[in-house]
Amino acid sequence: MEKKLEELKARLMEIGDLNAAAALLFWDQSTYMPPGGAEARGRQLGLLKQLAHERSTDPALGALLDALQPYAESLPADSDEACLVRVARREYEQAVRIPADFMARLTQHQTQIYTVWAAARPENDFAAVAPYLEKTVDLSRQMADFFPGYAHIADPLIDFSDYGMTVAAIRPLFADLRERLRPMVEAIAGNPPVDVSFLHRHFPEDGQWAFGLDVIERLGYDFEHGRQDKTHHPFTIKFSLDDVRITTRVHEDDLTEALFGTIHESGHAMYEQGIDRHFEATPLGSGTSSGVHESQSRLWENLVGRSRRFWQFFYPRLQETFPKQLEGVTLDAFYQAINEVKPSLIRTSADEVTYNLHIIIRFDLELALLEGDLAVRDLPEAWRARYQSDLGVTPPDDKDGVMQDIHWYAGMVGGEFQGYTLGNILSAQFFDAAVSAHPEIPEQIAAGSFGQLHGWLRENIYRHGSKFTAAELVERVTGGPMRLEPYIRYLHDKFGELYEL
Amino acid sequence: MEKKLEELKARLMEIGDLNAAAALLFWDQSTYMPPGGAEARGRQLGLLKQLAHERSTDPALGALLDALQPYAESLPADSDEACLVRVARREYEQAVRIPADFMARLTQHQTQIYTVWAAARPENDFAAVAPYLEKTVDLSRQMADFFPGYAHIADPLIDFSDYGMTVAAIRPLFADLRERLRPMVEAIAGNPPVDVSFLHRHFPEDGQWAFGLDVIERLGYDFEHGRQDKTHHPFTIKFSLDDVRITTRVHEDDLTEALFGTIHESGHAMYEQGIDRHFEATPLGSGTSSGVHESQSRLWENLVGRSRRFWQFFYPRLQETFPKQLEGVTLDAFYQAINEVKPSLIRTSADEVTYNLHIIIRFDLELALLEGDLAVRDLPEAWRARYQSDLGVTPPDDKDGVMQDIHWYAGMVGGEFQGYTLGNILSAQFFDAAVSAHPEIPEQIAAGSFGQLHGWLRENIYRHGSKFTAAELVERVTGGPMRLEPYIRYLHDKFGELYEL
Repeated sequence: MEKKLEELKARLMEIGDLNAAAALLFWDQSTYMPPGGAEARGRQLGLLKQLAHERSTDPALGALLDALQPYAESLPADSDEACLVRVARREYEQAVRIPADFMARLTQHQTQIYTVWAAARPENDFAAVAPYLEKTVDLSRQMADFFPGYAHIADPLIDFSDYGMTVAAIRPLFADLRERLRPMVEAIAGNPPVDVSFLHRHFPEDGQWAFGLDVIERLGYDFEHGRQDKTHHPFTIKFSLDDVRITTRVHEDDLTEALFGTIHESGHAMYEQGIDRHFEATPLGSGTSSGVHESQSRLWENLVGRSRRFWQFFYPRLQETFPKQLEGVTLDAFYQAINEVKPSLIRTSADEVTYNLHIIIRFDLELALLEGDLAVRDLPEAWRARYQSDLGVTPPDDKDGVMQDIHWYAGMVGGEFQGYTLGNILSAQFFDAAVSAHPEIPEQIAAGSFGQLHGWLRENIYRHGSKFTAAELVERVTGGPMRLEPYIRYLHDKFGELYEL
Repeated sequence: MEKKLEELKARLMEIGDLNAAAALLFWDQSTYMPPGGAEARGRQLGLLKQLAHERSTDPALGALLDALQPYAESLPADSDEACLVRVARREYEQAVRIPADFMARLTQHQTQIYTVWAAARPENDFAAVAPYLEKTVDLSRQMADFFPGYAHIADPLIDFSDYGMTVAAIRPLFADLRERLRPMVEAIAGNPPVDVSFLHRHFPEDGQWAFGLDVIERLGYDFEHGRQDKTHHPFTIKFSLDDVRITTRVHEDDLTEALFGTIHESGHAMYEQGIDRHFEATPLGSGTSSGVHESQSRLWENLVGRSRRFWQFFYPRLQETFPKQLEGVTLDAFYQAINEVKPSLIRTSADEVTYNLHIIIRFDLELALLEGDLAVRDLPEAWRARYQSDLGVTPPDDKDGVMQDIHWYAGMVGGEFQGYTLGNILSAQFFDAAVSAHPEIPEQIAAGSFGQLHGWLRENIYRHGSKFTAAELVERVTGGPMRLEPYIRYLHDKFGELYEL
C-alpha cells in the first residue's frame, strides 16, 4: 500500500506540475509577453493542458485509486492520506465523466463566444451574442447531465468550484441576504453624498506601488515565496506552494483600485502560501473552494483593510507618501470616502453593501436560464427589471448591463458567481471566530500588527488546503454551519455608524 | 506522403512546444522567480525536459522518418521538406544513440559538479573539483564513443553545436589565428595605456537601459516579438519565432557592459526573429550552429557596434543621455576607450583581439584532456603556462584561472568553446559579403541606418534557420569555404589604426 500511495502521489504530482507549467505560460501571457507571442503561446498552453487532462483521466489512475480505497477507508477520515485519496477520487470521477469530444466542443465554443462578445460588447449588440449564449446555456445543461442524480440542474456546476454547496442551500440564504440588504441600501440612499473627490487626485504609480507592497508585507504576504507584477485584469496564481504570485493594475487618478486590489489578491495568495508543504502538487494543495478562497481575500480587503482601526495605523503613512494630495483630508473623511455606498451598474467596482446584490441578480438569472423559465432573448429585460428593483438603477444599455461580465461569455452559465457572496458571508464568520479566540486582534490591527490574525488563519484555515470541504471547514473553525448573522451584524455596525442609520 | 509529412510536423511541433515551455520556466527562473520557488521549478523543468526527450527518441518518430526517406530523397536537396526530414533525422539519430541511463548519470553528475564548483571556486580549491572534473572527462569520452567512426574523439561533441565541424578543420585554423594574434598583442602592449576612466563614472541604470533599447530598436530588433529583462548572466531565449527575448545586466559604474551585452544578445535574437515562419517549432526553426549564431551577435556587437562610424551617429545621443559624465570626452577618446586592447585573465571581459586567445587556450587544453595527453591534476599548471606564453599574464590563482568558466563544470569537456572563435572569424567574412553586395552599408551605419545590412542578413542567413549546415551556408553566402583572412584584415585595419602599428 505504501508503494501504491507513492505511485499515486507521483502521478498526481506530474498532473500538478503540468498544470503549474501551464499556469506560468498564462502568467507570462498576462504580464510580460510581447504581443506577437500570442499565437504560439495559445498552442503551447493547449498542449500542456491536454497532457495534464490525459493524465487526469488515465484509467490507470482510476485503478490505483480503487486499489487504495480499502486502505484509505481503514485510516482516520481526517488523516492526510485518507483525505488525499478521497479528494483525488472526487476529481478523477468528475474528470472522467465528461467525454473528451464534449470538452473539445465546449472549449471551441468558449473561444468563439468570447471573440463574439469582445466585439459585440463595445457595439452594445446583444443580438449578436444571443445565439451563442443560448448555446452556452445548452452546453451548461449538457454538462450538468453528465452528473445525474442532482436535485437542481445547477448543482453539478456549483460542485466544480464550491463542492458540496447546492441551490437548495444557497437560494434561501441569498434571498434572506437580499431582503436584509435592500432596506440598508434604501436608507443609505437618503443620506447626503460622501466627498470622494480627493481619492481621484493624481497619485503617481511608484508611490501607490510601494505603499501597497508595504501594506501586504505587514499583513504577512511572503515575498520570498511570491511577487507582484502588473497586469490588465488582476489575479492570483500559483506555480507551487513556494511561489504564489499576485498581479495588480494602477490608475494614477484612483487611489483605491490598486490598493484594495493588492490587499484582495494578497488574501488569496496568503491562503495558498500557508498550505501545508506536504500537500505540494497534490489535489490537497489548493484552497478548498471558491467561497472559502473569497472569504480570505475579502477578510483582508474589507474587514481588515477598510476598517477604521487599520487606517488609524496606515493613514499617517499614506499621508507621508502623498502629502500634497491628502493635505487637509482627515482620517474620518478618508475612512468615509473609502467606504462610500452608492448603487451603480458595474459589479466589479461596487461597494461592500451593494456588491452582493449584483451577485444575487446574476445567480437568480442563471438559475432561471438553466431551469428554462427564462429565455436568452428575454434576459436583457429581466436584467434591467432586477437592477431597478434591487438597486434602484437601470442600465441604459446592454453593454453595462447583461453583457458586462466576462463569465457567461467565456465559461458556463451557472456555478461561478455564488462563490463571491458565499465568501463575503464567510469572511465575517471567520473573522468573528478569530476575534473570539484572540479578543486583542482589533487593537493589534490598530497598531499595525497582523501576526496574531494571520497565525490564526494559517492554523485554522490555510494549512488544511483542500483536506476538508468548505462545510467541514466551517464546522471545524466556527463550531457550526455557515451563518448569515455575523456578516449582517458586521454590515449593520459598520455602515450604521458611517451613515448614522 | 502528405499525411506522413503532416504527422512528422505535428510530432516535431509537440517536441518544440515542450522545449519552449521549458524555456519559459528557465527564463522566469533567471529573471523574476522569487527565491523560494527554486525547488519546485527544478522538478517542473525536469518533467518538461523528460517529456520532450521521450518524444524525441520515440521509435515511432524513427519509423516515420524511415517511411519519409525515399520521398525526401526524391525532392530537391535544398527544398524545405527535404531539409526538414534530413535535419530531423540527424537530431533523432543523435538522440537515440545516447542511452537513457547514461543521460541520467550525466545529468546527475553535472548537477553535482556544478554544486562543488560553485562552492570551491571562491575558495580557490581546485583539488575539490579535480576528481569531479576527471569524471566529466570520462563521461565526455563515453559520450563520444556512442558515435563510433570519428576521426577525433572531440568530433562527435563538436557535432552537437557545430555540426560538420571537425578537429582536423579547426586545429590548423586556430593555430594560424594564434600565430597572427600574438604579434599584434605584443605590438599593442608596447603602446601607452588608453584612458578608459570616464567609462567608469556613474551612469544611472535608467539611462543605460533606455539608450540600449533605442540602439537595438534601430538595429532592427523587433519589440513586437521580443523584450529585454534583467538577469545575472545575460542570454537570449526563444519561446517561438514570434517571441525571442534577451536579457542583460547593468552596472552603474560601467558604461560598456550593458550596452555591448545588449547589442550582442540582440544579434542572436535578430537571427532567430528572422527565421522563416514556416519553420516554427520544427528542427529548422533555430540558428544553424553555435559558430554561425555567434557570428551574428559579434557582427552587431563588434563590426558594427564598436566601429567609429556607428559612434559618429550614436555618440552625440549618448552625450545627450549622459551630458555630465561625458563632458569633454571627444568621439575619438570614446572610440579608443571602447576598443582598448589589454591582455587580462578573464575571458568574458576580454577585448576583440585577445578574446580568441582565451578560446584557443581552452580548445587546445580540452583536446589534450580528451586525448589523454593531459591529466586533470596537471591542468592548472598547463593553464598558467599557456596564459603566460599566449597573453603574457599569469593567473595568481585557480579561481581566475582554470576554474573561471562554468562550461567544464556544468556541461562536458569539449564541443562548446570553438563556436565563439568560429563566430568571430565568420562575422568578418559575412560582413565583407554584405558590404560587397551593398557598398553603401558603411555610410549607412554612420547615418544610423541599418535596414540594408539587416535586410541582407535576413535574406542570406537568418531566414534559412537550420536548413543548411554552417559550411553549406558559408558557401552559399560567400561563394567559398570559411576563411580567416577577412577577420585578420578587419583586426589589422581597425587596431592598426587605433594603435598606430
